Amino acid sequence: MKNILLILTFLLVSNIFCQTDSLFIRKIYDEALENGKSYQNLRSLCKDIGARITGSAEAEMAIKWGENLLNSYNFDKVYLQEIEVPHWERGTKEAAWVTNEKGEIKKLNIIALGGSVSTEGMLNGEVIEFKSIEELIKANADVVKGKIVFLSEPFNQKYIETFHAYGACYPQRGDGAKEAGKLGAKAVVIRSLASSDDDHPHTGVMDYDSVGTKIPAAAISTNDAIALINWLKTSKVTLNMEMDCKTLPNVKSFNVIAEMNGKDNKIITWGGHLDSWDVGEGAHDDGAGIVHSIEALRILKKLGYQPQHKLRCVLFMNEENGNYGGKGYAKQATENKEEHICAIESDRGGFLPTGFDIRGTDEQVKFVQQFKKLLYDFQLFKFDKGYSGVDIGPLMTEYPKMVQLGMTINSQRYFDYHHAETDVFENVNKRELELGAAAMTTMVYLLDKNLK
Amino acid sequence: MKNILLILTFLLVSNIFCQTDSLFIRKIYDEALENGKSYQNLRSLCKDIGARITGSAEAEMAIKWGENLLNSYNFDKVYLQEIEVPHWERGTKEAAWVTNEKGEIKKLNIIALGGSVSTEGMLNGEVIEFKSIEELIKANADVVKGKIVFLSEPFNQKYIETFHAYGACYPQRGDGAKEAGKLGAKAVVIRSLASSDDDHPHTGVMDYDSVGTKIPAAAISTNDAIALINWLKTSKVTLNMEMDCKTLPNVKSFNVIAEMNGKDNKIITWGGHLDSWDVGEGAHDDGAGIVHSIEALRILKKLGYQPQHKLRCVLFMNEENGNYGGKGYAKQATENKEEHICAIESDRGGFLPTGFDIRGTDEQVKFVQQFKKLLYDFQLFKFDKGYSGVDIGPLMTEYPKMVQLGMTINSQRYFDYHHAETDVFENVNKRELELGAAAMTTMVYLLDKNLK
Repeated sequence: MKNILLILTFLLVSNIFCQTDSLFIRKIYDEALENGKSYQNLRSLCKDIGARITGSAEAEMAIKWGENLLNSYNFDKVYLQEIEVPHWERGTKEAAWVTNEKGEIKKLNIIALGGSVSTEGMLNGEVIEFKSIEELIKANADVVKGKIVFLSEPFNQKYIETFHAYGACYPQRGDGAKEAGKLGAKAVVIRSLASSDDDHPHTGVMDYDSVGTKIPAAAISTNDAIALINWLKTSKVTLNMEMDCKTLPNVKSFNVIAEMNGKDNKIITWGGHLDSWDVGEGAHDDGAGIVHSIEALRILKKLGYQPQHKLRCVLFMNEENGNYGGKGYAKQATENKEEHICAIESDRGGFLPTGFDIRGTDEQVKFVQQFKKLLYDFQLFKFDKGYSGVDIGPLMTEYPKMVQLGMTINSQRYFDYHHAETDVFENVNKRELELGAAAMTTMVYLLDKNLK
Repeated sequence: MKNILLILTFLLVSNIFCQTDSLFIRKIYDEALENGKSYQNLRSLCKDIGARITGSAEAEMAIKWGENLLNSYNFDKVYLQEIEVPHWERGTKEAAWVTNEKGEIKKLNIIALGGSVSTEGMLNGEVIEFKSIEELIKANADVVKGKIVFLSEPFNQKYIETFHAYGACYPQRGDGAKEAGKLGAKAVVIRSLASSDDDHPHTGVMDYDSVGTKIPAAAISTNDAIALINWLKTSKVTLNMEMDCKTLPNVKSFNVIAEMNGKDNKIITWGGHLDSWDVGEGAHDDGAGIVHSIEALRILKKLGYQPQHKLRCVLFMNEENGNYGGKGYAKQATENKEEHICAIESDRGGFLPTGFDIRGTDEQVKFVQQFKKLLYDFQLFKFDKGYSGVDIGPLMTEYPKMVQLGMTINSQRYFDYHHAETDVFENVNKRELELGAAAMTTMVYLLDKNLK
């Protein structure tokens, strides 16, 4: 599809700010706030299924759950799109403690990073701390060899947008094992990428080199990291850990898709991801995006909206550890010679929506920014050039002329819960979740109506 | 002071958007997010003292707490301003249940409204429901006399701004007893003014006529209200209730004030209220406003800011049931012939700040809106003409040419907790609270620098 010239005409449609739009958007908000299904759907996904990592029985259940729910709304078409996905399992053992020179011990709240190898029984070694991945990379192999590397970089609280703080310390998790392994470390333990100081460790994906030694990689809670930093100031510290996680062969899985037919076959895609990490309930990440996305199609149908284009809601599988759902969706789009003009993702939690980041040309950004004035009354304020989402990323590679949006959401609490056992339904507020669904519905409506 | 012509010159100061301002504001945010004291101060106010209704021992403790804390920061002046305040006590008895025609009973989670009279022992009567205060007002005394009026109007979820929903059903609480009393009701029970359906009743102030019968007034939880509505569909229902609350003579109390001297004696006031209702911990209402306000003065001093005007942080007493602190402050301002040019209030919780409502002339609104562009990067988006705050309201009456601001804060969760036992420290997020303090500090800085 890369060789097809996709021409998007960004007409500054004269009626963008007309009263009709404002009234229709008001109806969307009324339906979401007064009769919305997001909250009850999220409760079901979190409580009837719970955590649903790719390849697990729960992920299979979630696919069936999504298909059944979408079928219950009588959309024009509901179907599964087959993909292959990785299969990593945490296993049953996950424990660690440290000992100092006085013989004192302290248990660490530890969690294997997604994709880590097992420790193959008990593993122990002297802890060597590095304050950042850059410091580790510069280190001499002699001082690292045979030790357990502890990467202690904290979440930088100065960022107002916490996704930027997460991005800044992401390499500690993503590349820690790779870099420590090169230098001969036995294992790597990182301070959780989390905005709050508490006892819950946060998992997340990490990478190995295709060549080189694979060493076990885990995160400890922020409180334990702070305690360990203090211990290391006055004593040598030995760390003992055991984890029996493992990677199994890839398995078959599915994206779940629902459609409303439009007057043409140009496609507007939106979605979130149905998989989650294997702790907590994946409530904010990304149960919220799933119910936002389903609700958008439900509300548009309920209000009798007649789309210009084909509207397609996608529950992507495997965003967390591989993005095989996003890649598979993009691949099948080009194989089927589909025409994609726009995609939107909700994968930043179920908190208060604040607007949309726009990925595209300056002209496309300006086009979307036209809606800003209309949406001010609905407390959507932020319309900046920015990132869209992981799941819809591969589609942009195939269709470089499309415009993509990522719903922006108050991020202040997101990394308190992200990839941890605290990401549960109880930490989602009903009205905030419903406003997210209304914002998603509104943007689909405005783009469908105004994008040629 | 009403007869003094207060001329505010709103210069469109050329450096409003200069880099110096942006850098200084960045320093404010760094200090708040990395080294902020709001969260620890709020923990202390909530956990070391807790609920602190006007006239209580806890309110006295809170005054001393505020004075000590402000003294610890070495501001130019810290002092108490004497005022007289009402003194209402809940007592020790608060219980209610309903019985239907089958003899089934159900306990109700009930809470006396602030200012209510006692039931003078057990009180019972048949329940008569009205779906709104308007419906009650239109009712015939014959059908109301001797009964217990149940006002069942729900919180209207359609409002995007929940303060508007609260305002819409406020008369049910404020005027329910007055109107039901006129028609000969024995008591009034209202559905809590709350955004969530749960088991916690929400108190709040109510009024009696200066003449006429005073009848007991209470709120029941939203879940109980929904259950009672359902019972009433199929059966007569009798309500039994007992409350021994009472109003005592007024007592002496204080506003707590701290100042930084400026180059002139024109005054910029900001604050929140130190009193709370007597349930929960007054964390969002208005512990948050208190710590926001203290933090603004602390941060400006810490950063070595040299004010143009006299900066005055006020911890007002008695916002909840009388506003004697706000009235006393305004009265003493005129008596002392003070020159007030501006006031800001934080009394909308400790959630994510979104901007400022502006109370003043169109010219004053435009003046403040100039800061909008500068503050976009700090995620402050909302600068509309609107309401400021209860505590600083009387000051506006005395100084009608001043400009007032009310910090706007994500209101989606506020009325889940408002005036209920769930308004506790645990429901406040550290970063959101700190961002509120930074926003308050920033606005004081910008107004002090640019307001002549």
